[in-house]
Amino acid sequence: LKMLFPAAEGGFVIGVTGSPGAGKSTLVDQLARVYRRQDEKVGIVAVDPTSPFSGGAILGDRIRMQSLSTEPGVFIRSMATRGKMGGLSAAVNDALLVLAAAGYKKLIVETVGVGQDEVDIVKTAHVSLVLLVPGMGDDIQAIKAGIMEIGDIFVINKADHAGLNRIEQELKNLLSIVSRPDGWTPEIVRTVATRGEGIEQLAQAIDRYREFLGTPGKEEERRLPLARERLMDMLRERIARELFARIPESELDEYARRMMDRELDPYTIVEHLLLRAGLEERR
Amino acid sequence: LKMLFPAAEGGFVIGVTGSPGAGKSTLVDQLARVYRRQDEKVGIVAVDPTSPFSGGAILGDRIRMQSLSTEPGVFIRSMATRGKMGGLSAAVNDALLVLAAAGYKKLIVETVGVGQDEVDIVKTAHVSLVLLVPGMGDDIQAIKAGIMEIGDIFVINKADHAGLNRIEQELKNLLSIVSRPDGWTPEIVRTVATRGEGIEQLAQAIDRYREFLGTPGKEEERRLPLARERLMDMLRERIARELFARIPESELDEYARRMMDRELDPYTIVEHLLLRAGLEERR
Repeated sequence: LKMLFPAAEGGFVIGVTGSPGAGKSTLVDQLARVYRRQDEKVGIVAVDPTSPFSGGAILGDRIRMQSLSTEPGVFIRSMATRGKMGGLSAAVNDALLVLAAAGYKKLIVETVGVGQDEVDIVKTAHVSLVLLVPGMGDDIQAIKAGIMEIGDIFVINKADHAGLNRIEQELKNLLSIVSRPDGWTPEIVRTVATRGEGIEQLAQAIDRYREFLGTPGKEEERRLPLARERLMDMLRERIARELFARIPESELDEYARRMMDRELDPYTIVEHLLLRAGLEERR
Repeated sequence: LKMLFPAAEGGFVIGVTGSPGAGKSTLVDQLARVYRRQDEKVGIVAVDPTSPFSGGAILGDRIRMQSLSTEPGVFIRSMATRGKMGGLSAAVNDALLVLAAAGYKKLIVETVGVGQDEVDIVKTAHVSLVLLVPGMGDDIQAIKAGIMEIGDIFVINKADHAGLNRIEQELKNLLSIVSRPDGWTPEIVRTVATRGEGIEQLAQAIDRYREFLGTPGKEEERRLPLARERLMDMLRERIARELFARIPESELDEYARRMMDRELDPYTIVEHLLLRAGLEERR
């Protein structure tokens, strides 16, 4: 990965998130086709929740995407959210690095926008698309806190459904009261992904945001905190691995047993283990 | 927390999860009322996702729960999922410890069952309830992998809705093909939480599972891996705090900048930082 890093330059990561059923996979599929027509190689990382309540649509989406996976110039990788904390964004970032180094410069990361891990992944993209659909009008007030911070471009998919004007108006109202520190005004794009409508316009909006990012200072301003966070995540992950390597499982089991027997409290155990792993605080 | 630990003995943690709209808050409310009639003090920790796509029902639920919060003998604490990785389950566990030490021995943790963090929290409960509702029949095949591992008791809420028999049959089919290593056969309880129906039966099912856990060896078998995981989580969290304390933010910013300028790759930086923090690998 270290050696691939220089070759990964120029990879542009597009994060796509939205509630289940918003049509993320179809939109990603269509966007990939637009980029293919521009002769760009497209890498797609689809993050699938392994939570029991993610619903069944995901399997269907994956199957639908199969059609695209036979297309040369498109590489699709599906990753599961199950796994240790901090591990997922690290794994996704590593996958994106490999893809970018292999010449896939348009990189799309698709996640179901539920759960903090998934949202974190999309936040680290160069541009973040948030998908909405008409008919979720009642919910929009409740979600406004989170939505503002994530979306660079808002996509109203299924724009042929009833309630388009209402959701667009509510979204505009919300956007009007928030001013982003970087000065970008999030765009709203209407699409009907199943018919490929609005996808070219979406690609253009993405280009406009990319140009905006190119303004001196802008990208750094936005991405520096994210780069810092990524470093911290990788550091945490590395140290967790260290810990597992240094503390034998039998010892951990023994401590866990003593905790269950209420012989030792977990706070004292953690102090013991820190000492044991040679990671104790310096005084 | 260390000093409270001994006093927390006897706290019994009931985890409740289910998809948005399954009626978790209403069920928790009703279950708390049953325990109050048995003169038990009830602590409730409601974990609210701060994800933008969790929907608007949560706010309403909280408001509804207010009625219960004025009831003496019930303590409700709402916690948000936003925050650093590993921090949430640690924070929830700490809150439960305080409640148990304060004499709230029936502890209910409610989470929206989406996202790995939320599922992890419910897994660490003494008993885990999974809420389903009729009409999600098509989805059940897709969710079976995750559902089996989590639920000790399955609650079909809104049992007066169409599709009850179908979901119950599908659930039974799924349960019949899985045998749990601990030998417990998950029970299925029908409820209509809004009318308080089936709640006494649910409380009885919880008691049966608690008795089962009391069988010598059973509780340890099930909870030892979880206790071990909890210790590892706490350890990770502690070390993350150590890291932040040892590495000045300006240094991290500098590294992040060099990473963005592609001057250094993140993998090399992490090695530098490990050395810097005095947490390098022992050779």
